[in-house]
Amino acid sequence: MADTAARQDPLVIFTPSGKRGRFAPGTPVLTAARQLGVDLDSVCGGRGICSKCQITPGYGEFPKHGVTVEADALSDWNSVEDRYKRIRGLIDGRRLGCQAKIMGDVVIDVPPESQVHKQVIRKSATQRDITMDPATRLFYVEVAEPDMEEPSGDWERLRAALKDQWRIEELTVDVALLRRLQPVLRKGEWKVTCAIFHDHHGVTRLTDIWPGFYEGPLYGLAIDLGSTTIAAHLVNLTDGSVVVSSGLMNPQIRFGEDLMSRVSYAMMNPGGDIEMTRAVREAMNGLAQSITTEAGIEARQIVETVFVMNPVMHHLLLGIDPVELGQAPFALATGDSLTLPARDLDLAAVNDHAMVYILPCIAGHVGADSAAVALSEEPDKSDEMVLIIDVGTNAEILLGDKRRVLACSSPTGPAFEGAQISSGQRAAPGAIERVEIDTQTKEPRFRVIGSDLWSDQPGFAEATAQTGITGICGSGIIEAVAEMRMAGLVDAGGLVGSAEQTGTPRAVATGRTNEYLIWDGTATGGPRISVTQGDIRAIQLAKSALYAGARLLMDELGIDGVDKVTLAGAFGAHISPKHAMVLGMIPDVPLDRVVSAGNAAGTGARIALCNIGARASIERVVKAIHKVETAIEPRFQEHFVAANAIPHATAPFTLLRQIVPLPDVSYNPATSGDGGGRRRRR
Amino acid sequence: MADTAARQDPLVIFTPSGKRGRFAPGTPVLTAARQLGVDLDSVCGGRGICSKCQITPGYGEFPKHGVTVEADALSDWNSVEDRYKRIRGLIDGRRLGCQAKIMGDVVIDVPPESQVHKQVIRKSATQRDITMDPATRLFYVEVAEPDMEEPSGDWERLRAALKDQWRIEELTVDVALLRRLQPVLRKGEWKVTCAIFHDHHGVTRLTDIWPGFYEGPLYGLAIDLGSTTIAAHLVNLTDGSVVVSSGLMNPQIRFGEDLMSRVSYAMMNPGGDIEMTRAVREAMNGLAQSITTEAGIEARQIVETVFVMNPVMHHLLLGIDPVELGQAPFALATGDSLTLPARDLDLAAVNDHAMVYILPCIAGHVGADSAAVALSEEPDKSDEMVLIIDVGTNAEILLGDKRRVLACSSPTGPAFEGAQISSGQRAAPGAIERVEIDTQTKEPRFRVIGSDLWSDQPGFAEATAQTGITGICGSGIIEAVAEMRMAGLVDAGGLVGSAEQTGTPRAVATGRTNEYLIWDGTATGGPRISVTQGDIRAIQLAKSALYAGARLLMDELGIDGVDKVTLAGAFGAHISPKHAMVLGMIPDVPLDRVVSAGNAAGTGARIALCNIGARASIERVVKAIHKVETAIEPRFQEHFVAANAIPHATAPFTLLRQIVPLPDVSYNPATSGDGGGRRRRR
Repeated sequence: MADTAARQDPLVIFTPSGKRGRFAPGTPVLTAARQLGVDLDSVCGGRGICSKCQITPGYGEFPKHGVTVEADALSDWNSVEDRYKRIRGLIDGRRLGCQAKIMGDVVIDVPPESQVHKQVIRKSATQRDITMDPATRLFYVEVAEPDMEEPSGDWERLRAALKDQWRIEELTVDVALLRRLQPVLRKGEWKVTCAIFHDHHGVTRLTDIWPGFYEGPLYGLAIDLGSTTIAAHLVNLTDGSVVVSSGLMNPQIRFGEDLMSRVSYAMMNPGGDIEMTRAVREAMNGLAQSITTEAGIEARQIVETVFVMNPVMHHLLLGIDPVELGQAPFALATGDSLTLPARDLDLAAVNDHAMVYILPCIAGHVGADSAAVALSEEPDKSDEMVLIIDVGTNAEILLGDKRRVLACSSPTGPAFEGAQISSGQRAAPGAIERVEIDTQTKEPRFRVIGSDLWSDQPGFAEATAQTGITGICGSGIIEAVAEMRMAGLVDAGGLVGSAEQTGTPRAVATGRTNEYLIWDGTATGGPRISVTQGDIRAIQLAKSALYAGARLLMDELGIDGVDKVTLAGAFGAHISPKHAMVLGMIPDVPLDRVVSAGNAAGTGARIALCNIGARASIERVVKAIHKVETAIEPRFQEHFVAANAIPHATAPFTLLRQIVPLPDVSYNPATSGDGGGRRRRR
Repeated sequence: MADTAARQDPLVIFTPSGKRGRFAPGTPVLTAARQLGVDLDSVCGGRGICSKCQITPGYGEFPKHGVTVEADALSDWNSVEDRYKRIRGLIDGRRLGCQAKIMGDVVIDVPPESQVHKQVIRKSATQRDITMDPATRLFYVEVAEPDMEEPSGDWERLRAALKDQWRIEELTVDVALLRRLQPVLRKGEWKVTCAIFHDHHGVTRLTDIWPGFYEGPLYGLAIDLGSTTIAAHLVNLTDGSVVVSSGLMNPQIRFGEDLMSRVSYAMMNPGGDIEMTRAVREAMNGLAQSITTEAGIEARQIVETVFVMNPVMHHLLLGIDPVELGQAPFALATGDSLTLPARDLDLAAVNDHAMVYILPCIAGHVGADSAAVALSEEPDKSDEMVLIIDVGTNAEILLGDKRRVLACSSPTGPAFEGAQISSGQRAAPGAIERVEIDTQTKEPRFRVIGSDLWSDQPGFAEATAQTGITGICGSGIIEAVAEMRMAGLVDAGGLVGSAEQTGTPRAVATGRTNEYLIWDGTATGGPRISVTQGDIRAIQLAKSALYAGARLLMDELGIDGVDKVTLAGAFGAHISPKHAMVLGMIPDVPLDRVVSAGNAAGTGARIALCNIGARASIERVVKAIHKVETAIEPRFQEHFVAANAIPHATAPFTLLRQIVPLPDVSYNPATSGDGGGRRRRR
C-alpha cells in the first residue's frame, strides 16, 4: 500500500494525472494505479489477458517531477507481454500494467486508450467533451467450480466471484439469460466475461456472458425518434466513437403527417395507437438491423439504447395512447426518465437483455428531445442568456442561463419542414434549399440539395440533371419569403404584389392573389416552383408562433433580449440566421451570436449513452426547468398576432449593427412598429 | 397524539391487543389505532369507503381495565355508517373505525376480520397458524389532477399520492401497465385502487389499478409442481382461505416417467428441454384457467403465484436445461429464491403483472419442495430430533432439530408411487390402497380408493362396481409386501414362497419365481392383481434407498435414533406407519411418533404466499441447512445394502414397545441382524 510504504520504496508518478506514491519493489503497475485511484482500465482484473492496462514508462531525467528513471525501473519484459505483442501487437515502448512491476523510481504515462473514463472530443468547439462512463462494461471473472460438499448454484457462484473480484453487488439477471449460464461457464472452463449494466439509479443487471475472455467492443444506439425521421448513431461504448449513423422515415407518417393528426388517428380509430406503436417498433428493429449489418457486428454487441423524442412519440414508443397529449391539460402518462429492458419495447435487433434509457420529458408538449437538447447545450451552465430553438413540426424552446431555465413548445406546424407549402418537400436531393432575389431585377437564383452551384452559375444544369429540381424545402422557403420581402415583392403584411406593382413578370396572378415564380420546369416535364400567397401565410403563421413562444419565455424572465440564439435540429443546421431574422422568426441578436447546434437532441442522446452521470444530471436539470404552457397563456396569442408582420423591406438592422455594435440595445422586428429597441430589463 | 395527550383526555383500550392510550376528544378510532400500532385494517385510508376498519365498542364496567364506558363514549352513529349498513350490511354493535370518534373512555374490540395480520388456523394441531402478511395488498388513493402550470406525469402524481397517503416509496411499474393508467385515473375521477406488491427484499411494484374503490379480494396461487402431478391452491390473500384446490397430471410425463428420464430426454434431443418447458407452462396456464373458472373470479384477481418443486422441475419451469442435474456434481443453475414477473414464465392466465415467488432450492437433488416442507414443518424450531421424509419419485429427507438441520435426497425410484410394479397404478379410484393378510389362512382382504368397505365386508362388490378394482397403488403395495412378510409368505431376504412352502394356493409359480395373488378379476373382464417377485425387489430397492438416506443423515449427526418421524407428501398421508416400519422403510420410533404432514410442500407454498416474513425466514433456514450428497457418500451404499432385508416375521417390536416403552433404546430394523438396539449417541 502506498500509505504504509517505506520512505526508501520506489516513487511512482503517473501522467497525465500527476498522481504519485511509493510502492514496495515488485508491485505491479496496475496495482499501484488502482491504489492511487489512477484511471487505468482493466477488463481481466490483472490477469494479462485483456491488454487494456497498457502503459508507457518514461526513462531518463524528469526534472519537473524531480526523478531520474533508470533503465531497470520496471521488471523485465516478460513472456505474457511477449506473447501478446507477437499475436496481437503492442506499440513499441508500451508495457502491460499488470505484468510490469515497479523496481525503481518511475514515471508512467497512461495513454488515452488505456483510460476507462476516456474523453470523447466533440466537434463543436463551444461544447465540453464527453467523458466515457457508460452504464454497461465488460468484466472478466474466474468462477469457483461446483462442489458437491458445499452445493450452490452456478449463478450464486458467479455473483460471489463478481463481488470478490470486481466489488459488484446486488447483481440481478433475467431468467431467460440464466438459461445460457451453465453451458458458457463450462465452455469457458469457469472463466467468463460478463457484460454488466450498472446505472446511476443503482440498477445492476447481467446483460450477457461469454466463455473465456471476450474483448468486445460493446455498442450502444443513440436514437432520436422524430415525428418525421428516425436518426440512430451506433456508438462504441469503449471510446465513444460513432461507428455508423443511419436514419429512416418514421413509418407513422402514414397515420398522419404531424403529431396532432396521429393523436387524432388514435382518437378516431380504436386500437390506432397500438398500430402506430407496432409500426414504430418495427421500424426501430429494421433500423437496428441495418446498422448492425453495416457495422459488421453482432446484434448482441448492442447492449444499450438511449431514446430521445417528443412526448407523442415517447408515448407511442412506450405503447401508451397519446390521446391525453392532444387536449388540455396535456397530461403525460409519465414524464420521468425510464430505464427498462429493450424487450419491453419489442426491440429484438439488439442484445436480448439490452437495456433502454429514455430521457425525461419536460412537459406534455416539451419532450425528452428537448431534455436532450438541454443536456447537449447546457443552458443551465451558461453565463449568457441563451435562447435555444429546436425547430421541427413543433418548435421546442429553451431560454435561460445558469440561474434559471424555462421551456415551452410552440405550435409552428410543419411549414418549416416544407409541408403545407405549395411546392414544398422534405430536404432531399433536388430540393431548392437556398434562394437569393436581386433587389433590382427581382430575378431569383437558387441552389438545390446535391449541388454546390447556384442556378446562374455555369454547369448548374449538368450538376442537377440527375436529381432534377423537384421542389422547395424548409430552409428554401424561408429564404425565398425573406428575399421576396427584401426585394419588395411582399409587403409588411405578407401580401404578394402583382406584376404591375412589382414590375416583374415572375409575379403571376392566380385568382385573387399573386404568386412569385422561382423556377418553371414544365417545358422539360419538371414542376413549376413558385411561392404562393398561401405559402407566405403558412410561413407567417409558423414564424409568428415560434417568435411568440420565445417572446413569452422572455416575458417570464422579464427580459427584452438574449445574448445568443442556438438553432438545434437538422433544420436548424440549414437555416440562414440572416433570413430567419428578416422574417422575424427569432429575436434580434448580432448575426455571429446565432449558432447552429446541429442535431443537438441526437448529441444529447449520445452523451446520455456514454455517461451515466449525464443521465443523473439531466434528470436534475429537467426537474428544475420551469415549463410555460403556451396554450393557456393569453400573452402567447398577443405575441402571436403582433409577430405576424414581416418587417424588413431592406437589409436587417442587425447587419448594420455588426458595423456599429450596440450591445445593450436589441432590435425586435415583431414590435419594430412601436418604436424599436428597448433596454433589456435584466 | 397519544404521547402529548392530556391526562384528562379519554382513555382508549383496544382488545385483543391490550394496547391503550389517551386521545383528544374527537379523534377517530382508526387514527388512535394507527398511532398505537393496533392492527386495524383500512384500504381506503379512513375515507369511509372500504369498511375494513369495523370495530366493536364495549359499554359498561370493565373492572379488568379499570374503566367504565358510557353510552356516549363514541360519537353518534353517522350517515356514512348508516349508508354502509343499509347497502352493504353491518353486524349490530359494529362501527366504522374511521367514522366513530372517541368522546370518552372506551374499550374497543378489533374483530379478527378487521385485522390486517389475520391468523389462518391450520388444521393440523401440531402446526403454528399462518399470520396473514401477503406481498400484495390493495390501496385506495386520491391522485392530484394534472395542472398545466406545474406539469407532471400521471404516473408521477400517482406515486406522490401513494407516498403521501400510504408511505409507499420506490414504486416501480411495467411499461405495459402504464398504458392503463390514464383511462383508469379519469374513469375513477382521480380516485383509484392500486394492487401493490411489496416483498421482503424491498421490491415494490404496481400490479394493477382499478377506477374508484375496488374491494377485491385478491388471490394467489400456491403451486406444488411435482414430477407426476401439479397441485394448485387458490388462496384468498385477505383471509388466507383456500378457495379452490385443483390438480392435474404433469404433461411432461410423456417425455419421461421420472425425473432422470426427462433429463435424459433433454440430453438426447436438442431442444428437448424447451419442449418440456413449454409443456409445463401450458399446463400451468390450463390449471390456472380452470381454477379461475371454478372460483368464478377474474384472472386479473390472481396477483401472485408461489411455486415449490424439485430441482429438475424448477429448471424446466424456468426454461433452464436440467442436464447438469443429471450428472455429478449436480450443479444448479441457480438455487436462490426467485422473485420475478409471471410473464417471464409465460404465465398468462393470471394478472398480466402478477409476481411469482419461487422458494430456494437446498441443493441439486433437494429442491424448493423440500424447502417448503421445512417451512411447513419447521425442523429448525423443533426441540425434538425430527426426521422428515417427503416421499415421491425421489425421497427428500430432512433431519435435525433447532440446533442443526441436514438434508439429502435418496433415489427411491417411483415404486412407492405404484410405478414399476406389475399391477401398480397411481392413487385413483379403483386402486387397492389398504391390504391385510390373515397370518393363519394367508387370505387377503383389501380396500380400494373410493370405498370405505373392506373386500370381505357386505356390500363391497356394489360399492366398487362403478370404479372396478383396477390395480394397486403405492400405499397398497407397501402394505401388501409388509403383510406378506408378516404372514410368512416372503422371507427376510425378500423371496416369495411357493404354494408348497406357504400352504396357500394364492402363491403361484411364475417361471422360476412365485407371486402372491390378491385379486383375480379376469372372470368379469377385470385385471389379475398379484404381488410378483419383481414387485418385492422394487419395493426392497426403494425402501433400502429411503432408509439408507435417513441413516446417512443420522450418522452425520452421530445419532442412532430419532424422536419423531414426519411423513410428508400426498403419499405420506396414506402410508401406514406400522407397515413402513415392518418393511424397514423408516427408523424405528413408537408408532404414535410417526405423523403425516399431508402435502407439506403445498402447505409451505401456501405459507410463503400468505406471509412475506416466511419467505425471508425460509431463505435463511435453507442457507443454514447442511446438505449431504448421497451419490458420493460410500456409507450410503453400505447402508443401502444393509437395509435390503425385510426383518420382521411377526408384529414389529415397536408395537410391543408401546406397551413397555424403552425411550432410550431405538430398534433399527436394517441392522437388527447384528444385535439390535444401540444407545443413542446424542
